[in-house]
Formats: sequence, C-alpha cells, structure tokens
Amino acid sequence: MFKTLLPDFKDKKVHDLGCGLGWHCRYVSEQGAHSVIGVDISEKMIGKAKDMTDDPNITYLQSPIEDVNFTDQCFDVVISSLAFHYIESFDTVCQSVYRCLKTGGTFAFSVEHPIFSSRPEQDWIYDDDSNPLYWPIDYYNIESKRDTQFLESTVTKYHRTFSTYINQLIQAGFTVESFKETLPPDEIIGRPKMKDEVRRPMFLMILVTKNS
Amino acid sequence: MFKTLLPDFKDKKVHDLGCGLGWHCRYVSEQGAHSVIGVDISEKMIGKAKDMTDDPNITYLQSPIEDVNFTDQCFDVVISSLAFHYIESFDTVCQSVYRCLKTGGTFAFSVEHPIFSSRPEQDWIYDDDSNPLYWPIDYYNIESKRDTQFLESTVTKYHRTFSTYINQLIQAGFTVESFKETLPPDEIIGRPKMKDEVRRPMFLMILVTKNS
Repeated sequence: MFKTLLPDFKDKKVHDLGCGLGWHCRYVSEQGAHSVIGVDISEKMIGKAKDMTDDPNITYLQSPIEDVNFTDQCFDVVISSLAFHYIESFDTVCQSVYRCLKTGGTFAFSVEHPIFSSRPEQDWIYDDDSNPLYWPIDYYNIESKRDTQFLESTVTKYHRTFSTYINQLIQAGFTVESFKETLPPDEIIGRPKMKDEVRRPMFLMILVTKNS
Repeated sequence: MFKTLLPDFKDKKVHDLGCGLGWHCRYVSEQGAHSVIGVDISEKMIGKAKDMTDDPNITYLQSPIEDVNFTDQCFDVVISSLAFHYIESFDTVCQSVYRCLKTGGTFAFSVEHPIFSSRPEQDWIYDDDSNPLYWPIDYYNIESKRDTQFLESTVTKYHRTFSTYINQLIQAGFTVESFKETLPPDEIIGRPKMKDEVRRPMFLMILVTKNS
C-alpha cells in the first residue's frame, strides 16, 4: 500500500475492495480501526486470508467487487490496492463506493498506472545488451480490455486514461484530494533493479473524499 | 483551445496567461466577456496581437507570466493555452491565479501532456518504413528542464508529472472539476496524419474552480 497517502484508520469502519490475502485488512486493524470488511472474488484467496487472520475486528466476504451492495453511509474509509484495473466498469465502482461511504469519508486506492497499462506487453523496449531503452506507450486513448501475460497465464486487465479515473470519481460526487505516482523509497532507489523505476511510473494512487 | 472544457464567458472578467497573438482573447470577447486582459512575455507577439485586435474590451500587457501581479479577486475566469510548460514554477502560477480569481471563479488551461513531455526528443520511435511503432517514455519522474528542438531552434520546456499538476492546484486551494486528454474531433480522426493521435495524448486540459 502507499503509506504517504493513507488516511487515519483509528476507530474507523473500513472496507477493503479486492483484499486478496488480507494484508491490508490486518494492517488497518493494527492501526486501530473499529472494524474491517475485506472483499475478494477469489474463494481461494478469501480462504487463505481467513486462515492467516486471528482478529475479531476483521470480516471477509467472497464476492466480485461489482456485486457488493452494503447499505448507504456505512463506512468511514474504503481502500483498494491494485484491484480496479481488473474491473470493467470503474464508473460503477465509484458510484457504489460513494453510496456506502459516510459523509466526510475517504476513498483511497491504487491501480496500475495508465502509462504502464496502455500496451498489453507491459514491458520495456531493450537494446541488444538487454538494457531498457524506454517504456513504450500505445493505444493510450483506446480504453478497453488488455490480455496480458503473467508467468504462464493470460490475465485480463482494463486500461483507462488518467482523465477517466479523475472524471468518473468527480462525476460520482467525490472531491479529489491527492495523487501519487510511484517512486520507490530513497533507501532502495539506489539498488540495481530499482534504478529504472524513476523512468516510468508503475502505479497510480488516488485519495478522494465524500464531502456532501 | 479546448471548447468542451471551456467555462461560460458571458459578462465575465477574463485573464489570458501566455496570450501569444491574442486569438483566445478575441474568442472570449466574442463570447460576450465583459473584458479580457492578455499577458505574454514576447514584445513581438504582444505587438502583433494589438495590431490584430480592434476591440475596446481587450487589453494586452507585455510581461513574464510569473511577474504578473493583479490585485486579489479581480477576475472571474483565468485561461491559458499551452504556456505553463515553458514556466519553471507551476506552483507560483497556481498561487498567483488563485489569489487574483474571485471566489467561485474558474481556471482552465492546457499544457503539453506529461506523456508527451517526458523525453526531450518528443517523437515516435519509427520502424524501417518510417511508421510510428510506439511513443517512448523516459525520465518520467525526473521533473526538470528539457531542451527540445523545434524547427531549427532549441526550446526550453519543463516536464512535470500528472500528480504534480493536480497536487499543486489542490495545494493552492483549487477544486479539481475536469480533465481532458486530447483526441482530435471525430470529423478529422479518420485523416491519414490523424490516425496516430489516439495512440498517445499530446495535450492535457484541466479545469478547476476557486470555491472558498
């Protein structure tokens, strides 16, 4: 997660969309949250998350993010880490999160950066010695499914532009508070594999609030 | 300029930062603005703008954008077209515009898109038949001067990330209303030279308001 952009969790009712193995649910509970509900589409992930959790304040729910239907104004904070680029309709997510957040509540999430997600290859262009020459952009304004390769599987992701992320949040009623494009922390930026990370952003982090 | 993102100019006091030959000043006045003040650093441009203008509602001022110091709350709308990527401190511009805008006022501007401005070469990578293969990104997180070539001159520009544009506007006090990444209009997108424009954005347009 992105500590510099995290809201205060103390005594808050928190909802984690796409919680995976529950790492962020447990982190949030350790920060003093009143309660946390984690949702993930994967039965396997949710099962493992439950096995890894010994905390009565955390509850897990197996469901697609798009189908979750909590009552209005029931959470103080909604978080999500690297899940929404697997979801076809970000618009629906925005409206649903806005509805279930209390007035004054915060929505903080990360996604794959639009610069990172535009080409399905998701890789550098290399020179003959395998040094990254530059990060290629293509099809940026064509917002659609991208079938990408991860290990030996095909993974379906959805590329969206920067303005789609921003405008759909604003149209749902949110106030934009802060953006962050990832850069590794100072203590590791000098390491060999990290030096190229300043050359293109991999993740985008957004924090918005529901003010009325 | 970007018509879909333009505010209403009727009876408004408008300020154009980096007005060049005054095209937008005249457009805004034709839309019924109360008055327009255009500012540009270039004495030559301002001279030509004046020669091209026969409209008592438009006034031109020769000055660097950074040095303009109008009194507080004197404009309803501030616009700027493709000028701020020539300015070193966007932060200063944000604070100065916020100050001179009336409460409820609008600030709408365009800049070179961060995807377009990251590499000083500002060009596609081509195949052997001169077809654009992809648009290369590099040094994205390194915000600094870029000496680019335009015709036979060296032009100094300043690359900024997406999050810097957004966060500095928010820190100055603005509310983010809308973003747009350029795509040519439907009627010309089919033309041969236009077909690659969907592959990477060239301009970024932002509209923010001063709400308090």
